[in-house]
Amino acid sequence: MLKLFYATGTCALASHIALQEAGADYETVRLDFRSNDQRRPEYLAINPKGRVPALVTDRGILTETPAILVFVAQTFPRARLAPLDDAFAFARVQGFNSYLCSTVHVAHAHRARGYRWVDADDAGAIAAMQKKVPQSVAECFDLIEREMFVGPWVMGDSFGICYPYLFTLARWLEADGVDPGRFPKVLDHRQRMSERPAVKIALAQELN
Amino acid sequence: MLKLFYATGTCALASHIALQEAGADYETVRLDFRSNDQRRPEYLAINPKGRVPALVTDRGILTETPAILVFVAQTFPRARLAPLDDAFAFARVQGFNSYLCSTVHVAHAHRARGYRWVDADDAGAIAAMQKKVPQSVAECFDLIEREMFVGPWVMGDSFGICYPYLFTLARWLEADGVDPGRFPKVLDHRQRMSERPAVKIALAQELN
Repeated sequence: MLKLFYATGTCALASHIALQEAGADYETVRLDFRSNDQRRPEYLAINPKGRVPALVTDRGILTETPAILVFVAQTFPRARLAPLDDAFAFARVQGFNSYLCSTVHVAHAHRARGYRWVDADDAGAIAAMQKKVPQSVAECFDLIEREMFVGPWVMGDSFGICYPYLFTLARWLEADGVDPGRFPKVLDHRQRMSERPAVKIALAQELN
Repeated sequence: MLKLFYATGTCALASHIALQEAGADYETVRLDFRSNDQRRPEYLAINPKGRVPALVTDRGILTETPAILVFVAQTFPRARLAPLDDAFAFARVQGFNSYLCSTVHVAHAHRARGYRWVDADDAGAIAAMQKKVPQSVAECFDLIEREMFVGPWVMGDSFGICYPYLFTLARWLEADGVDPGRFPKVLDHRQRMSERPAVKIALAQELN
């Protein structure tokens, strides 16, 4: 059975929702980041990066949200979560998810994980990073709102693996100091996502 | 015909090499970052992110290196650049490329693009970021060397879309203040890549 390692409030939620949308048989293991579970030797043996998500499969362990999302789509084709047989459409999906992981998530991470890129005890630099987060995150979502969002879902009519990922990152807007009301399409998408049964189940599992 | 927008010394080289390895019919358009070509309205109409690579296809424009690499693999299947029909193996490839784009490239970008995450005129914070780059980049390559590199190529016996990407980022090690000799597998891989005819052609096109 698939086993997803996650922590609450992290991007692992995207993979969790995708598994639920796909009708997968899976179990979850919660890590507590406040207790530094992700740095314990037993978890580093699973994911040497010390991050989530990690998905244990019968063939080995997968990491990185864009990779796991496509794996779920490919493993459960009946859920039709990605246009796997259309190279151009698939590349658009992948380009969107790649932007989320390498630009949007990274902009957000400068609020609480600045120590990755400056010395942890450099309070001035850490604060300088935190100060820019509302602007840099808003610029990302402005681009999504103006240029990328097709509607009614991100890539048009059909549901798929971009949506749980955008939903997950859009849930961080308020904490990042960004008013989601600036991005009506993204906000409406977040609301519609939150009403999907699969999303409710995944959130309930993570919060209970 | 496919048209790749690139700038020299950027991650667009990975897509360029992949097109060459695939035997694709393509042309290239060079942007000069020193002249801020990437911020000109005519380029922003192609890629509103103002970055490279961008690949113009007959169906539209694609961005983001991991997406373009898979598009090339899928469009030119005879080149066998990715295990497209094996969800687990494909997810390992994607996980590797996702790590390169969201962690390795991002660590590197704090040397010259720190203004993305702090105010451009905050010289102290910019310098604090630059100071950490040798450490944060080295940590990434240490993980690749110890945990990810299967050998003789990154994912084992067969060549594929991870290799031009790793090659491209590994070429930045010296400029990032990291001694590549610390990572013998990565260094040997970089050397073998540099001897491939497709790599020589792509590099010659970019430098001439």
